[in-house]
Amino acid sequence: MMVKQQIGVIGLAVMGKNLAFNIESKGYSVAVYNRSSDKTDSILKEANGRNLKGFYTLDEFVSSLEAPRKILLMVKAGLPTDETLAQLKPLLEKGDIVIDGGNTFFQDTRRRNKDLNELDIHFIGTGVSGGEEGALTGPSIMPGGQKAAYDLVAPILKDISAKVDGEPCCTYIGPDGAGHYVKMVHNGIEYGDMQLIAEAYFLLKNVLGLQAEELHEVFADWNKGELDSYLIEITADIFTKKDEQTGRPLVDMILDKAGQKGTGKWTSQSALDLGVPLPLITESVFARFLSSLKKERVHASQLLKGPNMDGFEGDRQIFIEAVRKALYMSKICSYAQGFAQMKAASDEYGWDLRLGDIAMIFRGGCIIRAQFLQKIKEAFDRDANLANLLLDPYFKEIVGNYQAALREVIATAVKLGIAVPAFSAALAYYDSYRAEFLPANLIQAQRDYFGAHTYERVDQEGHFHTKWF
Amino acid sequence: MMVKQQIGVIGLAVMGKNLAFNIESKGYSVAVYNRSSDKTDSILKEANGRNLKGFYTLDEFVSSLEAPRKILLMVKAGLPTDETLAQLKPLLEKGDIVIDGGNTFFQDTRRRNKDLNELDIHFIGTGVSGGEEGALTGPSIMPGGQKAAYDLVAPILKDISAKVDGEPCCTYIGPDGAGHYVKMVHNGIEYGDMQLIAEAYFLLKNVLGLQAEELHEVFADWNKGELDSYLIEITADIFTKKDEQTGRPLVDMILDKAGQKGTGKWTSQSALDLGVPLPLITESVFARFLSSLKKERVHASQLLKGPNMDGFEGDRQIFIEAVRKALYMSKICSYAQGFAQMKAASDEYGWDLRLGDIAMIFRGGCIIRAQFLQKIKEAFDRDANLANLLLDPYFKEIVGNYQAALREVIATAVKLGIAVPAFSAALAYYDSYRAEFLPANLIQAQRDYFGAHTYERVDQEGHFHTKWF
Repeated sequence: MMVKQQIGVIGLAVMGKNLAFNIESKGYSVAVYNRSSDKTDSILKEANGRNLKGFYTLDEFVSSLEAPRKILLMVKAGLPTDETLAQLKPLLEKGDIVIDGGNTFFQDTRRRNKDLNELDIHFIGTGVSGGEEGALTGPSIMPGGQKAAYDLVAPILKDISAKVDGEPCCTYIGPDGAGHYVKMVHNGIEYGDMQLIAEAYFLLKNVLGLQAEELHEVFADWNKGELDSYLIEITADIFTKKDEQTGRPLVDMILDKAGQKGTGKWTSQSALDLGVPLPLITESVFARFLSSLKKERVHASQLLKGPNMDGFEGDRQIFIEAVRKALYMSKICSYAQGFAQMKAASDEYGWDLRLGDIAMIFRGGCIIRAQFLQKIKEAFDRDANLANLLLDPYFKEIVGNYQAALREVIATAVKLGIAVPAFSAALAYYDSYRAEFLPANLIQAQRDYFGAHTYERVDQEGHFHTKWF
Repeated sequence: MMVKQQIGVIGLAVMGKNLAFNIESKGYSVAVYNRSSDKTDSILKEANGRNLKGFYTLDEFVSSLEAPRKILLMVKAGLPTDETLAQLKPLLEKGDIVIDGGNTFFQDTRRRNKDLNELDIHFIGTGVSGGEEGALTGPSIMPGGQKAAYDLVAPILKDISAKVDGEPCCTYIGPDGAGHYVKMVHNGIEYGDMQLIAEAYFLLKNVLGLQAEELHEVFADWNKGELDSYLIEITADIFTKKDEQTGRPLVDMILDKAGQKGTGKWTSQSALDLGVPLPLITESVFARFLSSLKKERVHASQLLKGPNMDGFEGDRQIFIEAVRKALYMSKICSYAQGFAQMKAASDEYGWDLRLGDIAMIFRGGCIIRAQFLQKIKEAFDRDANLANLLLDPYFKEIVGNYQAALREVIATAVKLGIAVPAFSAALAYYDSYRAEFLPANLIQAQRDYFGAHTYERVDQEGHFHTKWF
């Protein structure tokens, strides 16, 4: 009898291919299949001598796997995933495990998990973060689905994941869509981190006139301290890159129109559904939309008045340090929002998320990896039910010390006419969250006035309606 | 043969009942039906002598109507509407017109319009704004659906609508879900207006220490100028109301936890789907979420540090006028966003919305009614394809003159620790929209660095990828 393969990968675009090679490199035998044969041909050519078998029909591919079959799906999210599952279903047996590693919307994963579960087929939806490079060398992995099925694939997933201090960046997240949900929030947080860095960069450039080389030095310096993270590191790196055609810094030659793939948007939409305030990430999504209106902006820049940008008279080093503090404090506010959203989703969908463990697996492999995630892990170790990161002693102390800098930076930007939507959203969140009183009493009065929506009182229980007129 | 009724109303909760009475008062004969008979009994008792007939089965109700039948549905949005339609369908004939006047999600209206259209039954989804009082005396009406069907019910809808300068606040909006979409954005704009007023109130109260009586005077004064609107008017009114139990201003006895019904959230979610920046309304939705975390806020207020609030040293009258200008400019930015969203939705769904006409019907009957809408109407008269209200000469002039005040007010709030999420979102939008350059070039560099997402260049066409490392 032929020796069977230990795991199969369907979908051999760059993520699928790199994951297949990563798995094989850890000593597993791998079967691969792609809808069009050219990608299969090409991976087999690259694979020479490696323990990797290619198949040209789904039937042969499935038959080649040892039971219970473990199949990693790396096809496009949405309809292509449903189509592949429809073709797979008749070929699978009870106990088989399908793992969707695409950037799938978590509600789709919940639906598919339920559908396949009725056939006793396990379905794991897993976030995989780290881009092409991470897929090959060690991504952060966030699997959700049946725990028993996870246990069967856990050795492989942990082996191929990134490691931090010897710990794999892979842990069971929770039932059905939990893994894809956490990956979605990860991506939303990534939008926030990138927007905050962009605002810091723009302030340094426009307020102080720093050029690429100086910007490199500032970010490289920041990367040695509490901001130490992959995104700060690559930002420092980006400023060193010269454009081959013009010899100028490449970043200055790139058009200021940001693209997006939709996961940031999903994060905001889910927060709106859950009733969780997520202003910073949402402003970051809107900032990308605004950036894409380049033509309108160029036109508007000739029509709409602003202040003179050359008005800064403070100390330059003090301002740079203030921007650093503003960035770190805003980042803390952003993660406070994102983790509060995961907590709310956990309650809503019954996932029992362990937020400290999630912070742990974000520490390596993925785009938002950072020293700082260790602090979040420690916060949830101190209190697993922490309502908000801002309430943790470490973070409370930092934001208490840094808030004056954030205020100073925003006031400067506001007066000079430089947009800082994410910094502003961070501070508005901080000042709202720490406000014993907000003006929502007036909003309740208005709602009761025109719509008889009733209100609560400060001095007694119950709902009240007033005849206002 | 019995004389048939000209129109029927299904669903006799307060909105349905008041609309039935409104229609009857304009000289139409009305049939009414409610799922439970008690509401029918009660309206018939109130109706004595009026031209209003009640029915206790849907069959008799439908039979009582002249052809083509005109049926106004005022039942709960969602499942109850689908259930009622399922019961109605077999009783209807080709050419009949069903009008859904509930707060229905526009995608549901699109689906229902399509379903019924296959049976040659017309389906109009209409926004009705103005609360209970408006329903009885004249609401703003935003009908979408088949134009030919609209023309048949237009006389009734126009008769019962609010009038401004003799013009009915009712016009055909567009096909299928267009009416409910416009109503949704209306409600989103209402969230924004209320949040802006709330922030203005809180600044006057906390920076200047104004009490209810003084606040009444300020808002009453503002209502005489360019801010003249229903919401400013009722705000002025609210500050005069005394709590009967304590004798104190009632607004001070109301708990600062704002409720919401979901239409604001839908507006933000739709903007995210369309790729339209809608930061101000979205911050207003999040502000309500934050307000509802009252217990957490009280706890956080004891832990999280802020500046001392008593630091204002400026001129009080100048500050009040700056807040007024900040409020008006922010309101303009909010409507610029909301109208840009309607424009994008019009393109996406093929509705061909006439934005000037929509501003016109917002002028009366509805919650956001305001003098200022006349200016929006005039802007679209000048240029029906205006990309953004900020580019119109009138609005451009105002925001150019008022931006310094908005900057001053935000800087003050930021330094004193008073949250102004909507004011901040307005200014960040303004400063982004008028920015020839934004820092999105860095975001594109990062995306290309870690994900090979490619970027565009400032000096040539095409998409480029760099090997960064």
